[in-house]
Amino acid sequence: MATAPAGSPIRRALAEAIGVRHVIPGGEADPKFRADVLGKYVADPLFVVRPGDTAEVAACVRIAAEHGASVTVVGGQTGTVGGAIAAPGGIALSLDRMNRVIAMDTVSMAMTVEAGCILQTAQEAAEAEGAFLPLDLGSRGSATVGGAIAANAGGNRVLRWGMMRDMVTGLEVVLADGTIVSSLTPMIKDNAGYAWKQLMLGSEGTLGIITRAVLRLRPKPTTDQTALLALADFASVTALLRSLEVRLGGRLSSFELMWGDFYAAMTAAQLAARPRPMAEGHAFYALVEMLGGDPDHDAGQFEAALGAAIEDGLVADAVIASSGRERDALWAVREDMVPGLAAYKPFMVYDVSMALSAMPGFVEQVRIRLEAAFPGVRMLFYGHAGDGNLHIIVNVGDKGMAHEREVDRIVYEMTGEVGGSIAAEHGIGRSRIGFLGLTRSPAEIDLMRRIKRALDPEGILNPGKILE
Amino acid sequence: MATAPAGSPIRRALAEAIGVRHVIPGGEADPKFRADVLGKYVADPLFVVRPGDTAEVAACVRIAAEHGASVTVVGGQTGTVGGAIAAPGGIALSLDRMNRVIAMDTVSMAMTVEAGCILQTAQEAAEAEGAFLPLDLGSRGSATVGGAIAANAGGNRVLRWGMMRDMVTGLEVVLADGTIVSSLTPMIKDNAGYAWKQLMLGSEGTLGIITRAVLRLRPKPTTDQTALLALADFASVTALLRSLEVRLGGRLSSFELMWGDFYAAMTAAQLAARPRPMAEGHAFYALVEMLGGDPDHDAGQFEAALGAAIEDGLVADAVIASSGRERDALWAVREDMVPGLAAYKPFMVYDVSMALSAMPGFVEQVRIRLEAAFPGVRMLFYGHAGDGNLHIIVNVGDKGMAHEREVDRIVYEMTGEVGGSIAAEHGIGRSRIGFLGLTRSPAEIDLMRRIKRALDPEGILNPGKILE
Repeated sequence: MATAPAGSPIRRALAEAIGVRHVIPGGEADPKFRADVLGKYVADPLFVVRPGDTAEVAACVRIAAEHGASVTVVGGQTGTVGGAIAAPGGIALSLDRMNRVIAMDTVSMAMTVEAGCILQTAQEAAEAEGAFLPLDLGSRGSATVGGAIAANAGGNRVLRWGMMRDMVTGLEVVLADGTIVSSLTPMIKDNAGYAWKQLMLGSEGTLGIITRAVLRLRPKPTTDQTALLALADFASVTALLRSLEVRLGGRLSSFELMWGDFYAAMTAAQLAARPRPMAEGHAFYALVEMLGGDPDHDAGQFEAALGAAIEDGLVADAVIASSGRERDALWAVREDMVPGLAAYKPFMVYDVSMALSAMPGFVEQVRIRLEAAFPGVRMLFYGHAGDGNLHIIVNVGDKGMAHEREVDRIVYEMTGEVGGSIAAEHGIGRSRIGFLGLTRSPAEIDLMRRIKRALDPEGILNPGKILE
Repeated sequence: MATAPAGSPIRRALAEAIGVRHVIPGGEADPKFRADVLGKYVADPLFVVRPGDTAEVAACVRIAAEHGASVTVVGGQTGTVGGAIAAPGGIALSLDRMNRVIAMDTVSMAMTVEAGCILQTAQEAAEAEGAFLPLDLGSRGSATVGGAIAANAGGNRVLRWGMMRDMVTGLEVVLADGTIVSSLTPMIKDNAGYAWKQLMLGSEGTLGIITRAVLRLRPKPTTDQTALLALADFASVTALLRSLEVRLGGRLSSFELMWGDFYAAMTAAQLAARPRPMAEGHAFYALVEMLGGDPDHDAGQFEAALGAAIEDGLVADAVIASSGRERDALWAVREDMVPGLAAYKPFMVYDVSMALSAMPGFVEQVRIRLEAAFPGVRMLFYGHAGDGNLHIIVNVGDKGMAHEREVDRIVYEMTGEVGGSIAAEHGIGRSRIGFLGLTRSPAEIDLMRRIKRALDPEGILNPGKILE
């Protein structure tokens, strides 16, 4: 176990900067600082430091740099790619003391939060004022806003409101040399100089430490409509998506796609909790959501849009939720995955994206290649198809994790062949670092290295992530 | 006049790389390469080069770098801040030969274009396939897609679809050392490494030369509703905006605000062409647009949303367009500005943004300060208020342009005081370069410099813009 004696210079300096009780030896820290959520990666940080404000974050970074220690921010530790695992001999930095909503302006529709603020706390603070923070993730109760910015989180409503990138207007970061760069502005439009904030989004803590942010809010929708639709082929899926986008205007907020075998596996395992909303056996199932603001007409327009799709022969079967309970039951097919996944353990999970037109061919080829390499392989396909994001679950037998890199390679090589991305929303972190070159050219990776060197020449910030 | 003899080494090298007829001495080139649209800045480039493909662009950049000449891309020359003015002894690079729509995928809703493609050409190509490129500018007929990317253009529909930043998924650029970085991908979600494409957006040709791009398309809306509304105070403006955002869901596409004196001046000058759509004398006028997809219900929902706002006491008067002709007449109030502006010549024009809550106080203070400094000053306020963007026209007398920097300073200092941006959508270019520090901290500007040095250490690309 990594230790630094109580009287070591780095420990003394950190304790002096932020208070001795906020410098915790790694071995005594909460498990989330020592392993990722999937248990694939372990860390053994020298210390966990808990600065109380931005100036203290800057002091910690400067002290770490002076002593040659790296700094990895650990937020909710809800990521899946080992992005928040401290490097050997490094420091884990927690923003759990910087977890407040600082300001709310519902005229300008902007809120200012500290980076350690839990996403759900931010959502609820907005809703208490009649506003709406559209980013939503399954891990909303433990993921932090800072982590969601560092990962450029996506979720279920990217189709309508975009990713975290589209909701951050203001940002404050601490650079690798301890410089504080603060621009906590609410402007939707700001072309005064380089978009350095955009560079921080999705940089996984390797270019700067996000300490505070201003988030764009929206007026809270007052109606929601949800339906589960069965479809016979992929051409119907894309035609349905575009038809609903037109007919519902900007109100289509989710279009979640499930391949037939995913639907069958999940709903079979959920039977103890709730009946199947519709029969299995269709090629595809789409869960669609419309969020609107006209209680008198929205339900009718939603039904009319679905009716038109049925008349056009795009939809084989449809269930429309007529209550909040029914809506939750439809979403549960997609979100209550624990029972259904039990039979697939141990499994690998992928998060790729591509042009929608490439998706059916991609799925077919991945099936063929994995079946050839791993007879008996079992796969499930689902995703946020409205934005080209596909998730894949793969089981290649009880000892399958020994083959993880081979499965990775097959999936990611095929992703490269269709011009897709190996990381639609979950990032590169540690686990995908060796595959970046399959979809990014040497010139692109060299450009990324130039950016990293310009902002963190000593490699202090979260080393071993994104770039080798 | 800058000249390089026909036999000069740089001219020979350029002619060999791209063909002698595509290397035009600066003095013989089209006027747009020698002055900006407002006639404020002049250029005297060594040559105008017209490469035919990306490899030729890269060759031109390498040759320029070898000979110590800078490279400034000149697109439609529709900008207002002198951003496309070649530096002394530099080369102007035109992409007018690279003006094609290369690919269109209406399943994935993505189109690939060359950077020299005229915006309107791209719009029409999308619409011919039933798709929709939401970016729209008054200069659509001459602005290029590459210029719109380099400027991160905004326009009238940012409220719903965002700026160019939100429409670019793939990008190909030539860096200052001639490296081609190509990532022509259609993915809405792609978190595989640093967001270098975002950094290029709004960088005004100073970090890389954009050669090709993939743009995200949307299904084309099938209905449009337009109304002109009069309002008594700014609190009604913000309440109306949020009310319409809720009631129209994501279909509210424009919310253009005009102060009463702007409305009076424009409509008075337009009387020869068309009658006033409603009386002058109100404090504010808002032009609102809804784009939808349900011909049976959209008009009714739009009227119901406006009716609710009237019942809530937010709207003092309303005119709803009942035909395309009436719609065009309402938009003309805002867009047919040439007759009304004639009486304000010579004038300065500003493009600032801020939190909506700060806007009324900002306008009041700008009026007070300019009236104190320039008795008899005449001002007009209008803008894309839905996204916090305010334009200001200022006339301080017939010889007023001599006072431009003083007026600039008053407007931009006040912008800094409210935490706003001096360049909402038009960029920094040359004209605002001295004011960047009023709204960006030294740490921010230093970070921008680090980025510039990392990507263009020799300062080859469009020098003298954004940063001093």
